[in-house]
Amino acid sequence: MKRIAFILAIFITGFCKAETGYELWLRYQPIANAQYVNACKQLIRSLEIKGTSPTLRAARSELERGLNGMLRINLPLSHSGSILLGKPENIPAITPAIKEQLSKAGTEGFLIKTITIGGKNRILIAGNTDQALLYGVFHFLRLIQTEQPVRQLDILSVPRSPLRLLNHWDNPDRTIERGYAGFSLWQWNNLPAYIDQRVIDYARANASIGINGTVLTNVNANALILTPEFLQKVKALADVFRVYGIKTFLTARFSAPIEIGGLKTADPLDPAVREWWKKKADSIYQLIPDFGGFLVKANSEGQPGPQDYERTHADGANMLAEALAPHKGIVMWRAFVYSHTSDDRFKQAYEEFKPLDGKFSSNVLVQVKNGPIDFQPREPFSPLFGAMPATPLMMEFQLTQEYLGQSTHLVYQATLYKETLDADTYTNGKGSPVSSTLSGFAGVANIGNDLNWCGHPFAQSNWYALGRLSWDYTLSSETIATEWIKQTFTPQPAFVQPVLKMMMRSRELLVNYMTPLGLTHMMYNDHHYGPMPWGNTLNRPDWNPVYYHKADKAGIGFNRTGSGSNALRQYAAPVQQQFENIDNCPDDYLLWFHHASWDHKMQSGRTLWDELCYRYHTATDSVRAMQQQWKSLQRFVDAERFSHVQQMLAIQASEAAWWRDACLLYFQTFSGKPFPAGYEQPKHDLEYYKDLRIHLTY
Amino acid sequence: MKRIAFILAIFITGFCKAETGYELWLRYQPIANAQYVNACKQLIRSLEIKGTSPTLRAARSELERGLNGMLRINLPLSHSGSILLGKPENIPAITPAIKEQLSKAGTEGFLIKTITIGGKNRILIAGNTDQALLYGVFHFLRLIQTEQPVRQLDILSVPRSPLRLLNHWDNPDRTIERGYAGFSLWQWNNLPAYIDQRVIDYARANASIGINGTVLTNVNANALILTPEFLQKVKALADVFRVYGIKTFLTARFSAPIEIGGLKTADPLDPAVREWWKKKADSIYQLIPDFGGFLVKANSEGQPGPQDYERTHADGANMLAEALAPHKGIVMWRAFVYSHTSDDRFKQAYEEFKPLDGKFSSNVLVQVKNGPIDFQPREPFSPLFGAMPATPLMMEFQLTQEYLGQSTHLVYQATLYKETLDADTYTNGKGSPVSSTLSGFAGVANIGNDLNWCGHPFAQSNWYALGRLSWDYTLSSETIATEWIKQTFTPQPAFVQPVLKMMMRSRELLVNYMTPLGLTHMMYNDHHYGPMPWGNTLNRPDWNPVYYHKADKAGIGFNRTGSGSNALRQYAAPVQQQFENIDNCPDDYLLWFHHASWDHKMQSGRTLWDELCYRYHTATDSVRAMQQQWKSLQRFVDAERFSHVQQMLAIQASEAAWWRDACLLYFQTFSGKPFPAGYEQPKHDLEYYKDLRIHLTY
Repeated sequence: MKRIAFILAIFITGFCKAETGYELWLRYQPIANAQYVNACKQLIRSLEIKGTSPTLRAARSELERGLNGMLRINLPLSHSGSILLGKPENIPAITPAIKEQLSKAGTEGFLIKTITIGGKNRILIAGNTDQALLYGVFHFLRLIQTEQPVRQLDILSVPRSPLRLLNHWDNPDRTIERGYAGFSLWQWNNLPAYIDQRVIDYARANASIGINGTVLTNVNANALILTPEFLQKVKALADVFRVYGIKTFLTARFSAPIEIGGLKTADPLDPAVREWWKKKADSIYQLIPDFGGFLVKANSEGQPGPQDYERTHADGANMLAEALAPHKGIVMWRAFVYSHTSDDRFKQAYEEFKPLDGKFSSNVLVQVKNGPIDFQPREPFSPLFGAMPATPLMMEFQLTQEYLGQSTHLVYQATLYKETLDADTYTNGKGSPVSSTLSGFAGVANIGNDLNWCGHPFAQSNWYALGRLSWDYTLSSETIATEWIKQTFTPQPAFVQPVLKMMMRSRELLVNYMTPLGLTHMMYNDHHYGPMPWGNTLNRPDWNPVYYHKADKAGIGFNRTGSGSNALRQYAAPVQQQFENIDNCPDDYLLWFHHASWDHKMQSGRTLWDELCYRYHTATDSVRAMQQQWKSLQRFVDAERFSHVQQMLAIQASEAAWWRDACLLYFQTFSGKPFPAGYEQPKHDLEYYKDLRIHLTY
Repeated sequence: MKRIAFILAIFITGFCKAETGYELWLRYQPIANAQYVNACKQLIRSLEIKGTSPTLRAARSELERGLNGMLRINLPLSHSGSILLGKPENIPAITPAIKEQLSKAGTEGFLIKTITIGGKNRILIAGNTDQALLYGVFHFLRLIQTEQPVRQLDILSVPRSPLRLLNHWDNPDRTIERGYAGFSLWQWNNLPAYIDQRVIDYARANASIGINGTVLTNVNANALILTPEFLQKVKALADVFRVYGIKTFLTARFSAPIEIGGLKTADPLDPAVREWWKKKADSIYQLIPDFGGFLVKANSEGQPGPQDYERTHADGANMLAEALAPHKGIVMWRAFVYSHTSDDRFKQAYEEFKPLDGKFSSNVLVQVKNGPIDFQPREPFSPLFGAMPATPLMMEFQLTQEYLGQSTHLVYQATLYKETLDADTYTNGKGSPVSSTLSGFAGVANIGNDLNWCGHPFAQSNWYALGRLSWDYTLSSETIATEWIKQTFTPQPAFVQPVLKMMMRSRELLVNYMTPLGLTHMMYNDHHYGPMPWGNTLNRPDWNPVYYHKADKAGIGFNRTGSGSNALRQYAAPVQQQFENIDNCPDDYLLWFHHASWDHKMQSGRTLWDELCYRYHTATDSVRAMQQQWKSLQRFVDAERFSHVQQMLAIQASEAAWWRDACLLYFQTFSGKPFPAGYEQPKHDLEYYKDLRIHLTY
C-alpha cells in the first residue's frame, strides 16, 4: 500500500510538466525572476556572427535555443547585433587591448566582454577558433541560467589542461562495464547510417563543460572496433563530435594484430606488428583526420600486453606512439597494473612505471588512477603523481560509482576529485599539488541510455564536475555544485543552499558509512555492491577485503610504514612525514598506513573502536537527515525527479545501516569490545549479514 | 558533409519543442482545431467520480492530464460533473436500459454514453469494475485525441478476448533477446525499492490499449527469477501493474527444481518435483495474489522440458497447471518446437501437439506462433489453429522485428496480424477464421529503454495494434493505423492520409523486397539481418536458407503437396484445395507449397523468374517513393522524429536494393535467365554480396 501511495503521489502532480532529467544542465527553462529577465532583454536583442562553419552554426543554434527558452527572446541576426560572436581576425573594430587579451586565450579559451562600438554597448564573445567561440556561447548561457549579471562583462577563460576526456567502458554489444545507467549510447548496429539525436545532445553537453575528447570503447578492449566495418561507424560519430570540438579516441587491444590482422604475434618489437599498427593508424586517419589516439590497458587483469613478449610497457606504448605520431595522435597508457607478485598492491603501479620514466615517446601519456588501489571512497593520492617528471601524466577519475553506491547513492564526487588534485606531492617542494603534475584529465563515464543519462539524478553532477574541473581545477567544489544545482533544478536560494550542503557532505558521509578512518575495499566480490569485510575466498589475496583491513585481536589496518610494506617510501619525504607517525597520522588515513590498536587514541579523543562506531553511526544518521531535508524541498522540484531522489535516499539510508551493522558486528569479533551506549542496535546478527546473497545482474 | 548538413537541419529547428517519442500515443498535445475545442469545452467542464480505489485515482489523473493537455481544461470535481465516472451500483440515477447495456459489458467492457439527469446532459463513463472504468477513460481520451464528436455518445465496447498479453524476452542482465530498442525496462538491481517512472508509463500505455497481462521474462528462461530475492522484485512491479489492470506473469524454466530447488530431477511425474512447484506457486501468490501464471518454452532449441524424462508436453504443462490451479493461475505452453527429426519443419508443431489435444488440464493454453515456421514476413497460418478443438489456444505474434528489418525498417504489422486472424481455417465449415479459434493474444514485445521505447518511431504502431486487435480483432488495420497516426503525430488529414497509405503498404513492400512469392527464411545466421539465400553452413538443415527455397535448375520452392512433404494435409480440406494446385495457388504463397519451374506462368501473366524480378524491383522502387513521400511531410512533424524516420528510410531503401540484388543474382545462378529489360542493374556482383560480413553486435 505504501507503494500505491507513492504512485498516486506521482499522479496527483503528474499532469504538470514532467522532467525526465534528459535535458541535463541545459534545460533553458523560462527564468522566473522578472527583474533579471528585463535586465537581460535590454542588453540582448540581436546577434551578429562573424564567419561560417558547422561549429559556429551549432553555437548560434544553442544561443537561440537558450535565449528563447530562458528569456523568450528570438534572436534576429543583425549587422550591429547586441551580441557579437567571432574571431578577432573577422572583427575589424576590435581594439589592441582586446587583441592582447585574446593572445592569451590559446586555441580554446574565450573572452566575453562588454565593449562599445560606435557608442553602442555590445557583448563580445570572442576566441581564436570556432571551438573557443562555442565554449564562449555555452559560458554565456551559463551566466544567464545561473542569473549572473550580464552588464559590464569581462571574462577571459582559458582551460588549464589541454586534454579533458571521458572514458567510456562500453562494449560492442552495448553493455557497459561498471555502467549503472542503461545501455551504451553507441548504436553500433545502426551506425554509420543513423545518428541518434542523443549522440548530438551528448556532444552538446560535453561542449558546454569543455570536454574535448571521448574514448568510445572499454579499456577491456575488443579488436572488433579496429576493423574497417567498425571504423566507418566510428567515423560517423567522429563527424558529429568534431562539430562540438570533441576528438574521438579508441581503446586498442594489444593483441589486435593477431585477432584481426592475421599475424602470429603482437610483439611490439616485431617489424610486421609495427607495420600493421602503422597501416591501421593510417587507415583510421584517412577516415578521421583529427582522430585523437589510443587508450590502452595492457598486462592488467588478464588483458594482453607487451609483457607477454617480455617487453616493457614503454616498448608497447612507443610502438603505438610511432604509428600515431605522423598524424599527431597520442597514446594514453594506463598505469593500473598489479599483475606481478608484490607484498602490497599499493606499491605495484609505482614499482612498474617509475623505472620507465623518460623511456616513453613524446606522444605517450601515462594515465594514473587517482589513488593507488582502485577508485575507493577515499584513497591517498597515487605516489606516481610527481614521481615521473619526464613523462606526461593523465589523471583518471571514476565518475561511474562502482564503489560509491552505483546508481542508488547520492554522492557528489567533486570533493573527492579536489582532495586528490589539491594534495601536495612536494615533488618540487612545498606547493606541488597533484594538479600541477598533470597533462590531462580522464573521467570514466557514468553515462548510459537511461532517460536521465546517469541513473541517479544527482550523478549528472559528477559528469558536470569532471568537465568543469578539467577546464579549471582551481574552481571550488562549492562553485561547481552551485552552478549545477541552479541549472539542473532552480536558482532559488531556498533550494540551492540546502542542496549544496547535502552535496558537499555526501561523499564524506559515504566514506564514513562504508570505509571510515582509512579502511578500504570491503565490498562484495564481482559486482562490488554492499559490505563484505569478511571476504577471503578469492584466489588472489589482494582481491579479498581481509587483505586490506587486516583486522585481528591486536587491531586493524595495513601497516605501510617502514615496519610494514613501506609503501610510504614511494612518496616524497614530507608526505611520508604526514602519515608515518601513528600518533599524528590524520584519522582519515590512519588505517591506510597503520595497523592500529583497538585502543589507539584518535584525534577526537575517542579510542579507535569507539571512533569507528561513532563514524558508522553518525554517517548513517546523517543520511536519514538528508532524507528529511530532501522531503522538505518537494515544492521546488518536479514530481518525477523528486520521487526518484526520494526513493533512492530511502535505499541509501537502509544501506548505510547495512554497511554499519555488517562492518561493526564483524570487526567486533576482533575488538571484543561492546558498542558504546546510546547507539541504535544492529537489526540482525553477524551471521545474517554473512548469509546475505546479493544477486546483482549487471 | 552530408552528415554535417543533417545535423544542422536538426538544429535550425532544434529549439522548437523537440519530441523524443517517449509520450507514445498519449501525447495530449493542445488541439489546434478551435471549433472542436469549443465544442468539447461546452460539454466537458467538471467531473463526478463514484468510488475510490488506486485504479480510479489513476483514471482521474489520466483524465485531468489528457483534458488539461488537449483542451486546457482544469477538471474540478463536482456533484453534478459533466463527466460521470462510476460503476452502476454506485450511480442511483442509472436507468434500467443502461443497466441492461452494462450487463453485457462483463468485467472489462465499458459504456460511454450521453445521458440526461435532471434535464442536464452528462457523459457517463461506466463499467462493472474499476479496470473497465479506466479503459473507458482511455477510450474517451482517444475520442478527443482523434477529434471525434463527443456529443450524443453511445459506445459499448467489450473485449473479444480475455487474455491480451505482452511477452518480454528480457533477461535478468537487462539484455533483451531479439530486442532492438535498448535495455530491458526492468531495473532488477534497483528493485524492489525503486520504481522507475517508466514502469508507470509503460502500464499507462498498456492500459490505454487494453493490454491486461505481461510476461516479464524471456522464454529462454532463467530460474533466478523464481528465487525469493527476485520474487520480491517481481512483486514490486506487479503492485504497479495491478493499478492498471495488468496481471503479471513469468516464464518458468522447466529445470528450476534442480537449479534453484536442490532437487536431482525435474521429472514432471516425480512427487517431489510436483511438490516443489506447488510450494513455489504458493509462495508467489502470497506476494502477488493476482499473479497470472507461467509461460513455458520447453524442449525447444535446447531448453529443458518434460521430454528430457520421456514425458509429454501435456505431462509438463499439467504439472505446472496443478500448482497454479488453486490460485486460478494459467499455464501458456508454447507450441514452438522442432526438436525431433522430420522431413519438414513446417509440420513439427502440429505433429507433436495435435495428438495431445484434450490431454491438457483446463487451465493450460497452448501458445502458437502465427505461422508454422518462425515469424517470417509472410507465412500461411499455423495448421494448429482450429486443429485442437479441445485445447484453448493463444496467438503469438512477434512485435519485435527480428525478421522484418529490426529497428531500421518501417513496417506496420497490423496487416500481417489481420491476414492471419482473418484466414479461414474451415475447421467449423466456411467462416471459421483463425480469430475464432483463439482464447488469447500474445505479442512478443518490441519495447526497450530507448527514449522512444521501440527504436523505429513507427514501431510503436505495432505495440498499439497488438493491443487494439487483442481487444477487438474485427477492427481494420486502417482504423487502427489512423487512430495511431492522429495520436502520435497529428490529426491533420494532409498528413494522415499519405502516412496511412505508407503504413498500409509497408509490410507488403517488405515481403516483396525480402521474400516474395512465398519464399522464406533467407536471412543471415544468428543475427537474422540481411539477405543470405545461399546460407547452407549450419549443422541443422532446417536452420539454413537453402532448406527453405530449394532453388535448382528446375525451379524454386518447397513442395509441400502430396508429392512432397505433404504438410498441406495438416490443413482442413478446403484450405488444402486453395494451395495444392500449382496453377491456382495464390502467387503470394506459391513457393511455400510448390517447387515451381522458373518458367511457371504466374497469375500476372509473367513467368516466375520475371515475376520475381518484378517484385524485388518494384518493392525497392516503392521504398524510394516512400522516402520522397516522407520528405514532403516535413512540415507536419517535429525535427527529431522527422529526421529519425528520414534516416531510417534511407537505410531501408539501401537495404531493399541489397536484398534485391543479392537474392536475384543468387537465384540467377539457377534460373540461368537474364534480368528483364528496363530494370536497374545490380550495384555489385554476387561474390561481393556473398563476401559481405555483417557484424551485428546485439
